Amino acid sequence: MNIAIYGYGNLARGVESATRYNTDVHLVGVFTRRDPATLHTLTGVPVYACERIMDYKDTIDVLILCGGSATDLPRMTPTLAEHFHVVDSFDTHANIPAHFDACDRTARASGHIALISAGWDPGLFSIARLYASAALPEGRDYTFWGRGISQGHSDAIRRIDGVVDARQYTVPVEDAVNAVRAGETPTLTTRQKHRRECYVVAAEGADRSRIEHEIKTMPNYFADYDTTVTFVTRDELMRDHAGMPHGGSVIRNGVSGIDGEHRHTVEFRLQLDSNPEFTGSVLVAYARAVHRMAERGERGCKTVFDVAPGDLSALSAEELRAHML
Amino acid sequence: MNIAIYGYGNLARGVESATRYNTDVHLVGVFTRRDPATLHTLTGVPVYACERIMDYKDTIDVLILCGGSATDLPRMTPTLAEHFHVVDSFDTHANIPAHFDACDRTARASGHIALISAGWDPGLFSIARLYASAALPEGRDYTFWGRGISQGHSDAIRRIDGVVDARQYTVPVEDAVNAVRAGETPTLTTRQKHRRECYVVAAEGADRSRIEHEIKTMPNYFADYDTTVTFVTRDELMRDHAGMPHGGSVIRNGVSGIDGEHRHTVEFRLQLDSNPEFTGSVLVAYARAVHRMAERGERGCKTVFDVAPGDLSALSAEELRAHML
Repeated sequence: MNIAIYGYGNLARGVESATRYNTDVHLVGVFTRRDPATLHTLTGVPVYACERIMDYKDTIDVLILCGGSATDLPRMTPTLAEHFHVVDSFDTHANIPAHFDACDRTARASGHIALISAGWDPGLFSIARLYASAALPEGRDYTFWGRGISQGHSDAIRRIDGVVDARQYTVPVEDAVNAVRAGETPTLTTRQKHRRECYVVAAEGADRSRIEHEIKTMPNYFADYDTTVTFVTRDELMRDHAGMPHGGSVIRNGVSGIDGEHRHTVEFRLQLDSNPEFTGSVLVAYARAVHRMAERGERGCKTVFDVAPGDLSALSAEELRAHML
Repeated sequence: MNIAIYGYGNLARGVESATRYNTDVHLVGVFTRRDPATLHTLTGVPVYACERIMDYKDTIDVLILCGGSATDLPRMTPTLAEHFHVVDSFDTHANIPAHFDACDRTARASGHIALISAGWDPGLFSIARLYASAALPEGRDYTFWGRGISQGHSDAIRRIDGVVDARQYTVPVEDAVNAVRAGETPTLTTRQKHRRECYVVAAEGADRSRIEHEIKTMPNYFADYDTTVTFVTRDELMRDHAGMPHGGSVIRNGVSGIDGEHRHTVEFRLQLDSNPEFTGSVLVAYARAVHRMAERGERGCKTVFDVAPGDLSALSAEELRAHML
């Protein structure tokens, strides 16, 4: 099975390295909007200008789209689904229905599959929420994220005047996680669920107390959270905060029995050293599923809810039943 | 959607009580091999002799089979799949391929779906193993069960001469769980993964040290484990050990990156007050999926690996995308 990558950032490099662990998947190449000569891939796979993608229409079984959710994917996924089976990681939860409709229209018209919003949230976390709520229709869900780097929040800090660089960790509040994990069903405010740790490199002579104040009072991003700001040197930031860890837990506490007398906890937890590499690996598994679903004649926009787990594995249905069931 | 229950033990009562939380599901009745007049159902749903099941062929959309895996289901599931869409919880892992083949043959011939081995292990734990291995092809899986009641082990103790009653808890070894949860990939012996706690009511005058010795040296069941035996009165057993809790964790530790330099942990954890009620609830969700798959024209034997998560939920695909993705 031949895949290709469209766009070449952190997520794309995650997809590229994931092909090393999926021996049934062959990476044809990377397509970029930049000058291909300026890109050096991790594995030495060829780089092509994105304008040339139609030359590879018959070679590529599934195209993995590694653009951003804000501006790239809303156009990129429906457009490329006119010519390819595609997988994306569109993660703006509120806009998923609109993105689905746009992709479904072009994918159906052209006879392709567009699998959107794969990864871990949306993705494996969504699936965990679904299985848990199907098994426990009466119950309450909690999603805790972190400890992990949020690119969006790090970028928001970098836009502040006098900030040279920054990393922001989203951290679940331990007491809240422990209470939910123990089966309690508290009502938690935003502040009670997560806190935010910021590591900031300030420009020489910049007013640090002003920067700290601007961060802590930033609406949507920080104002509703307990936020700590730590100023570090550029070297310290590179040494201690260069990684891209993430993870978290989906927990559902529910009841069963004639009178709701029995309590149950379902938890799905991820602890990831590298968010983009894990996400990239999930995208490769969904590319495999899309390839199989397309061969069975399925068409249109799909999400992770539409994909049977068996289609994700390189193993055959017989092997899975014998060894994994 | 109309379901019926075939067989009426703990699991069947779990299915029955689960219908309270699944308002799209109507329970037509319970079919039993015993005298229907002797059965009192939890919800007052009618009880019929199993010989009358063919009278309800057109009423029942999906039949949930609540027989045992040792002797009931190997015959029951293929036979009833000649006339009904069926769901079972066949849990003898080693015999799943043979059970699948037998059910697939009759279900295909008759144009029905037989979904086998639903529940949590096999079932949700199998699904967790599959998603985790698809996301992390290079890694190592661990399954820990408990703390929970094992019916098979409790029964084995009850067969010992001088034992009036017994309950056996399977308990994961905490150090092993913590090491794996922290990302380590140890090679663990049977003894290093689980221990066994036995609560035993001895007959008056029975030789307790002989009973304890017979338990601790019983091959397959106890000999390979650290086992504790505690003698209790019948009242203490009823008071402290009447529940049927269970649960456990599936954990996979894997790597990503060009040189396997990043580590990841995926964990799926269940903590269940009532094993049969949770399992029954999972069976109802799979009955819903079978109903939908049958309406789409699918046929033959299926496992949880063949069922897309979205088919398990009472919510529509649109609602799921808008609220759960």
